[in-house]
Amino acid sequence: MNQPPSRERTLRHPTTPVRVVAVRPDRHLEIPDQVATEEPMEIRAAGPGQLPAPVAVTMRTPGHDFDLAVGLLFTEGLINHAGDVAAVKYCDLPDGAEQRFNTVTVELNSPLARSRAARAVNASCGVCGKTSIEEITVACPVLPTPPEVPEIRWTFILDLPDKLRVQQKLFDRTGGLHGAAVFDPTNHASMTLREDVGRHNAVDKLAGHALLTGRVPLTGQVLMISGRVSFEIVQKAARAGLAVIAAVSAPSSLAVEAADALGVTIAGFVRGDHFNIYSHPERIDLSR
Amino acid sequence: MNQPPSRERTLRHPTTPVRVVAVRPDRHLEIPDQVATEEPMEIRAAGPGQLPAPVAVTMRTPGHDFDLAVGLLFTEGLINHAGDVAAVKYCDLPDGAEQRFNTVTVELNSPLARSRAARAVNASCGVCGKTSIEEITVACPVLPTPPEVPEIRWTFILDLPDKLRVQQKLFDRTGGLHGAAVFDPTNHASMTLREDVGRHNAVDKLAGHALLTGRVPLTGQVLMISGRVSFEIVQKAARAGLAVIAAVSAPSSLAVEAADALGVTIAGFVRGDHFNIYSHPERIDLSR
Repeated sequence: MNQPPSRERTLRHPTTPVRVVAVRPDRHLEIPDQVATEEPMEIRAAGPGQLPAPVAVTMRTPGHDFDLAVGLLFTEGLINHAGDVAAVKYCDLPDGAEQRFNTVTVELNSPLARSRAARAVNASCGVCGKTSIEEITVACPVLPTPPEVPEIRWTFILDLPDKLRVQQKLFDRTGGLHGAAVFDPTNHASMTLREDVGRHNAVDKLAGHALLTGRVPLTGQVLMISGRVSFEIVQKAARAGLAVIAAVSAPSSLAVEAADALGVTIAGFVRGDHFNIYSHPERIDLSR
Repeated sequence: MNQPPSRERTLRHPTTPVRVVAVRPDRHLEIPDQVATEEPMEIRAAGPGQLPAPVAVTMRTPGHDFDLAVGLLFTEGLINHAGDVAAVKYCDLPDGAEQRFNTVTVELNSPLARSRAARAVNASCGVCGKTSIEEITVACPVLPTPPEVPEIRWTFILDLPDKLRVQQKLFDRTGGLHGAAVFDPTNHASMTLREDVGRHNAVDKLAGHALLTGRVPLTGQVLMISGRVSFEIVQKAARAGLAVIAAVSAPSSLAVEAADALGVTIAGFVRGDHFNIYSHPERIDLSR
């Protein structure tokens, strides 16, 4: 029904046109539609004079590819500062143009240990090459103790899903993307949003953007995500200095356990006029 | 707020008790709640006389662990028949009891090629160690041409979300799990359901159960999933012989592309009285 796969692909858009048979109560008809684009992206890293080493392959929605590449290196602990990054570029591969926009190389200012790159390859699975909760508390520094007076009002949390939703342009077109955004409680107009078929990619794109624009750690800011909170989301948030995660859906057990250990506040099921706090409630001002 | 992580964990349950601060319009109170359990599981495989080789680590919800281990080996092409499996067991590791229930070894009746095992390690990321749509059409045989008269009524598809939803016991308790089920259009009482924090795990559990009970290929049956349809879901369904996928949410571009190539029908946005068909509509009887 749709076009056969072609070797001559061009630059990917975040949404892809398709034709669908729309089955409705009274009739069916073939109509044009849009779906979220999903494409593999390989992330490579290289220190000065090194050949690029593969670090991860992730299924992602094209767009903000450089943020994603840098963000993944950062949340996986391979880089720590914007100054670690010398350049970010797409690769021209000898085997043709097809991979041009699906391979991103991050050139670093200091050598990359091959063993660390190999260890991170599994990271894009959400497993991080680590198999226990004890290990991640080494990789992610525990966040600073919250201020004695909580700085985030519970009503600020309540408003976040609507603020996220109205900005999810790609979701509007496709209905098939995760959204993640960083909000600043001291500046209600400030928001950075990323959308992706992969929830972890959306957060990595935010982390990469923050690193490259000199905003890490994102102390005092709030991460809002459109779906569930998994272990890896907590890990990535903590790495970026985000101590509060708000989500439309539920956290997992390991997400709560990691948040307890790392000092992250999780507000889940943020819907309408209510939500649940799963960890570190001391950051939220619950006064009426 | 919750219990600190303990080294002395016992057998995991699919849900985990937590205490939450429930923030409601008129008050807040601390109450007990349940979240979906998320734990890493390492899958190992070994042929006769071989030491177990790691094949994948996946973040999963405990339960049906053996189905998951066998299903992943099957959907990734490392095994093809129930007869390939000699035994499935949890491992007693020398480093203590903690990993006892998070490591599963599949003993095979013929030797496992180490290179194939290593290639599959990336599979649990949904990337499959393959980077192009052309490669997966080699790994997954194209499904048989559909019968001249479509066998699945459009009204059968419409009923699936409710049938799935009423059986999602873990979702009821936690609100945080994907559900996947196999339905038989010729026997409306037949359904096999699996729930997991990972969408791909839920489908692997179904595939493993089908393989171990001698039901592969699942010709003529329908896969219903609670969320979106990604590339890897299409690949796993095709591998199990499931030619029709129905989903509450949207497919991605690569899911549609793979479905076109492999002969899989995707019905997306199955909600209320309507849905959209993204590929191979000829399997659905749209007569009124």
